[in-house]
Amino acid sequence: MSPAFAIIAGVGPGTGASVARRFALSYPVALLARNPDNYTSLVDEINKSGGKAIGISTDVSDAGSVKKAVEEAKEKFGDKCAAAVFNASGPFFRKSVLELTEREFVGSYEVSCKGAFLFSQQTLPLLLAHSKDSSAKHPGTLIFTGATASVKSNALMSSFSTGKYAMRALSQSIAREFAPQGVHVAHAIIDGVIDIPRTKEWLKDMPPEAKIEADAIAEAYWNLHTQSKRAFTNEIDIRPMLEKW
Amino acid sequence: MSPAFAIIAGVGPGTGASVARRFALSYPVALLARNPDNYTSLVDEINKSGGKAIGISTDVSDAGSVKKAVEEAKEKFGDKCAAAVFNASGPFFRKSVLELTEREFVGSYEVSCKGAFLFSQQTLPLLLAHSKDSSAKHPGTLIFTGATASVKSNALMSSFSTGKYAMRALSQSIAREFAPQGVHVAHAIIDGVIDIPRTKEWLKDMPPEAKIEADAIAEAYWNLHTQSKRAFTNEIDIRPMLEKW
Amino acid sequence: MSPAFAIIAGVGPGTGASVARRFALSYPVALLARNPDNYTSLVDEINKSGGKAIGISTDVSDAGSVKKAVEEAKEKFGDKCAAAVFNASGPFFRKSVLELTEREFVGSYEVSCKGAFLFSQQTLPLLLAHSKDSSAKHPGTLIFTGATASVKSNALMSSFSTGKYAMRALSQSIAREFAPQGVHVAHAIIDGVIDIPRTKEWLKDMPPEAKIEADAIAEAYWNLHTQSKRAFTNEIDIRPMLEKW
Amino acid sequence: MSPAFAIIAGVGPGTGASVARRFALSYPVALLARNPDNYTSLVDEINKSGGKAIGISTDVSDAGSVKKAVEEAKEKFGDKCAAAVFNASGPFFRKSVLELTEREFVGSYEVSCKGAFLFSQQTLPLLLAHSKDSSAKHPGTLIFTGATASVKSNALMSSFSTGKYAMRALSQSIAREFAPQGVHVAHAIIDGVIDIPRTKEWLKDMPPEAKIEADAIAEAYWNLHTQSKRAFTNEIDIRPMLEKW
Repeated sequence: MSPAFAIIAGVGPGTGASVARRFALSYPVALLARNPDNYTSLVDEINKSGGKAIGISTDVSDAGSVKKAVEEAKEKFGDKCAAAVFNASGPFFRKSVLELTEREFVGSYEVSCKGAFLFSQQTLPLLLAHSKDSSAKHPGTLIFTGATASVKSNALMSSFSTGKYAMRALSQSIAREFAPQGVHVAHAIIDGVIDIPRTKEWLKDMPPEAKIEADAIAEAYWNLHTQSKRAFTNEIDIRPMLEKW
Repeated sequence: MSPAFAIIAGVGPGTGASVARRFALSYPVALLARNPDNYTSLVDEINKSGGKAIGISTDVSDAGSVKKAVEEAKEKFGDKCAAAVFNASGPFFRKSVLELTEREFVGSYEVSCKGAFLFSQQTLPLLLAHSKDSSAKHPGTLIFTGATASVKSNALMSSFSTGKYAMRALSQSIAREFAPQGVHVAHAIIDGVIDIPRTKEWLKDMPPEAKIEADAIAEAYWNLHTQSKRAFTNEIDIRPMLEKW
Repeated sequence: MSPAFAIIAGVGPGTGASVARRFALSYPVALLARNPDNYTSLVDEINKSGGKAIGISTDVSDAGSVKKAVEEAKEKFGDKCAAAVFNASGPFFRKSVLELTEREFVGSYEVSCKGAFLFSQQTLPLLLAHSKDSSAKHPGTLIFTGATASVKSNALMSSFSTGKYAMRALSQSIAREFAPQGVHVAHAIIDGVIDIPRTKEWLKDMPPEAKIEADAIAEAYWNLHTQSKRAFTNEIDIRPMLEKW
Repeated sequence: MSPAFAIIAGVGPGTGASVARRFALSYPVALLARNPDNYTSLVDEINKSGGKAIGISTDVSDAGSVKKAVEEAKEKFGDKCAAAVFNASGPFFRKSVLELTEREFVGSYEVSCKGAFLFSQQTLPLLLAHSKDSSAKHPGTLIFTGATASVKSNALMSSFSTGKYAMRALSQSIAREFAPQGVHVAHAIIDGVIDIPRTKEWLKDMPPEAKIEADAIAEAYWNLHTQSKRAFTNEIDIRPMLEKW
């Protein structure tokens, strides 16, 4: 196992947990979520099955909290980060522009974009260190989880989509700045319903291929991570075969 | 002259002033800028040349300030708004993601997106009222001024582009919500240097066609405003003939 | 009236006729269609109402036919072209990829893209001549009529959309080559049903604002034509207020 | 080894050969190129190293030739196709729209789009058969190799980009038609110079990370192929870390 670690922000029962498990097969993992309930049993599971994991309660929209979390991971796992995955989302509102409060409108940006910025600022130096380490197997990789709303902004979705469009802009700017220094930056457009406990009742008359499997997202992220410096993919979309788009 | 008015946020010596002059040919205009220096002489000029104008010192990133400004315009000019143009931009930083402060990073969003949201919330009821007025000559029109950075996010531009991508998402969501109610929402991608006092020294070895003329942007906005409900344009790009793109 | 003329390819009862009438207010117009029935009465109408028009039977997918048509227009109206509008479309098939014949698949490209290329090759020298004429009121303008299928390629639409995507690529390449020489090149994404005799029965339970008015497209094209060299718009979308997008 | 085979059109010394080698690790492969010199030694190499390969001289722009090629592959390897990769490109011209002959302009479309259509028509029934085979390890996968010119159409590039834009439209339409039937359709935007013998002298003062490694493209294609029906990626971009974009 490499001395580098992986860090995942926004660990919950879906994509975050799957990504954590997948990257834990190769790296110690630091799992960030605001609520420890979202990572406690997962940390146990990984540690019991031969991996190494720590959980850190973090508010990604708070600069101090993010700094502290990354420092804790660094103390524990060293100053090289092989992969940083930003998977957090703020509160979601389907509401008219006329009905959203300022707080509700801004909430999505606070997490999806400002949070992604704070997380990137703290992890990029460690990703750069890994990319410059000639013994590193794969380049340091920074992945952002986007959504349909990253590229299409529907009615009543202004809060969510402004945050997601902004995050996509951030990922592109970081890619253009840090790819020449060897860091692989990728943005994933998750276009469809992910099959998690919370969405159990959605699309329930449809076959399983109507929803995205979280483990399959994790596999796609791992494949991004293992791309060589001579073939970086900066954006992928992911959708189930039965999705209309 | 119709009883409806036009309101322009972000009035300065460039696009904002040109738009103000153009729309003042047909409507009373309310001109918003944080610093009264940006509108005082323009308000005089319009009032002296047969138009009607007021200036209102406004911080578009502050909900109370925007509300107060729109209420002042409403008291003065009535409760129908023919056109609302959001032309404000926050502070601009060309800086590495690693060097931006949180304050600097967020500043662009605060104006470009949150400001656009606050402005839209206050003006949409007046735009709807105008669109539903059968005597209105042109549908109520809400126009956002974007930039190259609304669709391309370069290195060192993360602050500016995240704000501009987010504003574009906002404009699309509002368009999809309010077009069916008769409000025309348009987003303009201004792709090039605008020829204003501040950019006098830029591209100065090039012919005038290397820069965009602010009056020509205003004309394009006017043409958007006069489109019928049966032919709304939701996005245009504008660039000078010598621009590389 | 300027000595320059306008030329419109793909004149039928909808957009083409409206564009012809609009540009005939300022220029002599040459109207191209394969079937003379599509322009005969329109030519009469324009000539009787104080304009100047000729109709030329043209197969835009045939190099010789296009060359002959433009030469005829040139002989009649001189060697300066103020505006060239490409509005032709090939046969339309809504069919599975597995059911389309090669002939059917290629038919859309033959008109929408190859035809647009042939038309551009013949008209660009005349547009350049006009743009370089210092007495010209507006820059020489080349406009292509695209569709929703220019940017979204749905199932069963492969023939139509491949032709339209290709035409959009052509328009962008021509814009980048000829804008620096003063020719304004624009592409219009017509996103919705145009209200013409053939679509009379479509959406008939909806209000008029569910369909695009052809005259309003023509007005938008005229507004593109009158843009200055310091503010070219290269792409617009046009849709009725009730369109879902 | 599964009874299904893979078929690659446009086998040359770069991407095609790498894809052939990669997929030959799991499937018998049929390699199509117009000139047998492009596959003869590769076929030998694969057969000698434990794989199975045949080469078939094919003009992808000719319906009869494509049909015959796919039938030959079917006779040899059975009626299930696990993966079909379209990697062919027509002749390339960097020329003004005014200087291109009709033949030159159309040449790119003939291969990139019409060829892709003919190849898809012949392979889709075999891909569907594979996707419906419950013993298939991975869904039938159809991959198209695009380029920077698939999404940006520069000056002097109209021939190449019209063909590539059209191919992208084709891939999207096929994806939307056949994904619900279980076929994975993907389009790859190869954005940069591929490191092949022909490009040896290009960018030679730059480090290797200025060019794309063909084997890395092949690995990305393999990763697309192995995605589950619950997480299809329909578009990826691929560029070397030092590429400007």
